[in-house]
Amino acid sequence: MNSGQRRKVIILGSTGSIGRMTLQVIAKMASQFEVVGLAAGANISLLREQAVAFRPCLVSTSQDNIAPSYLDDFNRLGIRVLTGETAAERLVSEIEADIVVSAIMGIEGLRPTLAAVRCRRRLALANKESMVVAGSLIMNEAKHSGAEIIPVDSEHCGVFQCWQKEKPENVRRVILTASGGPFLKTPLEELAKKSVAEALAHPRWKMGKKITIDSATLMNKGLELLEARWLFDLKPEQLAVLIHPQSVVHSLVELVDGSVLAQLSVTDMQLPIQFALCYPERGAMLLPPLSLSEVGRLEFYEVDEKRYPLLGLARQALEKGGSLPVVLNAANEVAVAAFLAGEISFPEIGEVIEKVVTSHAWSQVESLEEILTLDHETREKAQNLIDQRA
Amino acid sequence: MNSGQRRKVIILGSTGSIGRMTLQVIAKMASQFEVVGLAAGANISLLREQAVAFRPCLVSTSQDNIAPSYLDDFNRLGIRVLTGETAAERLVSEIEADIVVSAIMGIEGLRPTLAAVRCRRRLALANKESMVVAGSLIMNEAKHSGAEIIPVDSEHCGVFQCWQKEKPENVRRVILTASGGPFLKTPLEELAKKSVAEALAHPRWKMGKKITIDSATLMNKGLELLEARWLFDLKPEQLAVLIHPQSVVHSLVELVDGSVLAQLSVTDMQLPIQFALCYPERGAMLLPPLSLSEVGRLEFYEVDEKRYPLLGLARQALEKGGSLPVVLNAANEVAVAAFLAGEISFPEIGEVIEKVVTSHAWSQVESLEEILTLDHETREKAQNLIDQRA
Repeated sequence: MNSGQRRKVIILGSTGSIGRMTLQVIAKMASQFEVVGLAAGANISLLREQAVAFRPCLVSTSQDNIAPSYLDDFNRLGIRVLTGETAAERLVSEIEADIVVSAIMGIEGLRPTLAAVRCRRRLALANKESMVVAGSLIMNEAKHSGAEIIPVDSEHCGVFQCWQKEKPENVRRVILTASGGPFLKTPLEELAKKSVAEALAHPRWKMGKKITIDSATLMNKGLELLEARWLFDLKPEQLAVLIHPQSVVHSLVELVDGSVLAQLSVTDMQLPIQFALCYPERGAMLLPPLSLSEVGRLEFYEVDEKRYPLLGLARQALEKGGSLPVVLNAANEVAVAAFLAGEISFPEIGEVIEKVVTSHAWSQVESLEEILTLDHETREKAQNLIDQRA
Repeated sequence: MNSGQRRKVIILGSTGSIGRMTLQVIAKMASQFEVVGLAAGANISLLREQAVAFRPCLVSTSQDNIAPSYLDDFNRLGIRVLTGETAAERLVSEIEADIVVSAIMGIEGLRPTLAAVRCRRRLALANKESMVVAGSLIMNEAKHSGAEIIPVDSEHCGVFQCWQKEKPENVRRVILTASGGPFLKTPLEELAKKSVAEALAHPRWKMGKKITIDSATLMNKGLELLEARWLFDLKPEQLAVLIHPQSVVHSLVELVDGSVLAQLSVTDMQLPIQFALCYPERGAMLLPPLSLSEVGRLEFYEVDEKRYPLLGLARQALEKGGSLPVVLNAANEVAVAAFLAGEISFPEIGEVIEKVVTSHAWSQVESLEEILTLDHETREKAQNLIDQRA
């Protein structure tokens, strides 16, 4: 295959966990994909390394300035650099690409994600927070522009694969599995003593810090329910969660006749990334295949909502919609950051979020501006609560 | 829906286990399906009951004569009756139908199955032995006539559902699961003492006697490998078996990128029957849905070929093809019948089959006549071996 046939890829959040793995996958499939744009945050040193290795034509950083030595390096490579808060959005709009991998963490990914959808590209969506707070906006934009959205979450990628074959009216329920995180069996009274390092020791997945904490609280699964609601146009009662500590079955699609289709694989994000890049084709195997006889046993339990109160809050947000998902997500981003910074204990993540959510007066939110304003207000409120505790 | 739009169904083997369940399913979906033909063996009393309930226009029995009182009853109902060895075949050819459910047990189902495929109908195939001995013939006929084959085996129905929209070149392997039957954990030295009743006590599935014994020996899984080879056009090395005592996952399709799709459901043959009738639609749920949290645990092991020597023989037949699957199937039908009649012990089923298979000189078989001749010769040979033991 000559390089003229390679599919052009932009990676938003290239220095994060999913961004780095996407580059790993592309490095193994260099005859099929080429990197044309990389958007990073503050890690300019890694961005430079990535630029040297993959030679995009454009890179960006959310920082307002970058050190002259870095700028010289990019210049020498013939790579243009965009800077500032809106740089990722501008990067998406300025260059042609076939696929945009949206992997900026948190609500910061929202504007660039919307920009990608407006450009009628394939969106490989790892930034679930965008879909949680602005699912309606994103899906409407995609409908208008004809953009194709392929989820990069392992659970949603699994649903997508099982669902391909079925008519929407034949789907009864979608079940997302959750490993339960590192504290699945920790006595509840010990949770307050758990350190950041212990919370980051996820038993199955290697992921970024924020999503790893979200997995320990099960907020990640709550956000995934909200994401799935929009991606697959489901009613709240069509969405369920099962604890599955082995993380081999990522999701299940229950059909109206009682048949259930499930997607399984080893726990490595390279698989959903590769799927989203290659779809509707499938790439060659990058990892040793799953051996069920080696795994031996797959377990499934109902969720204990006493252990994971945030899942209940996420369910409320799923049912009520409107402003609630925005508030939930903002409070969560602030509380998780505070936990990671050592400002609050593990159970306080949930306490802070619950206070913020229960004191919020529900409203309809429609525009991007309303969403971002509410997000901003909620962050202040959550931060104040945390500061009062300290 | 008015009755003019109902799909017309012929059931071959209506008084057997799958035949009776098919009628149960149709009774629950009477607005969508109507029974136009029923072919039975010797159980005329049940055939009459079924005819009274479903009012087909034609019935058949493999018996040469039926008692005048029965004949009178069918006459009073305005139902024509065909009799004799070829009656099922003639029934299939004489009446129009949308779907033929092929559920005659053993090689006796072969001619009627071929007749159905030639008529360019949908074949809902439960008679796996036909595909085992004459897969090439059946698939060629289907290609010529345009007939559609939907498997009714739960495992193959699962593969069919997972596979539907994947490209064949994207499928790496197909894995069929086996419960292991009632003797999964029985000490090998105790197998000789196991009674027919114990062998018929399948832990998961309610099925006919022959297939239940085949499940205890794992020959059923061997036959399914041979069936899958033809149904899905796979190479022997693309087919695998895993022991899965819970029988919740029926089969798995491993794709070239390492992703695995699986089909799960409660263990009730009504589900694959309904699927084969309704495809590409899906019918309403006839049974309580699967609850994975109630099942709790799914286990998977490699097959112990010491315990299940027949699976190894089936694999040889899969690899060598030609006359070997015909010989294997014929020897198995005779040995299982002898076990059910109390003539040989459980381990002797395998011993008889192995003797027949290892003393057979491989040949190519192409025509239906060659297949049926070889089947006949093998049966005699197997029966002689059994008679010598008695």
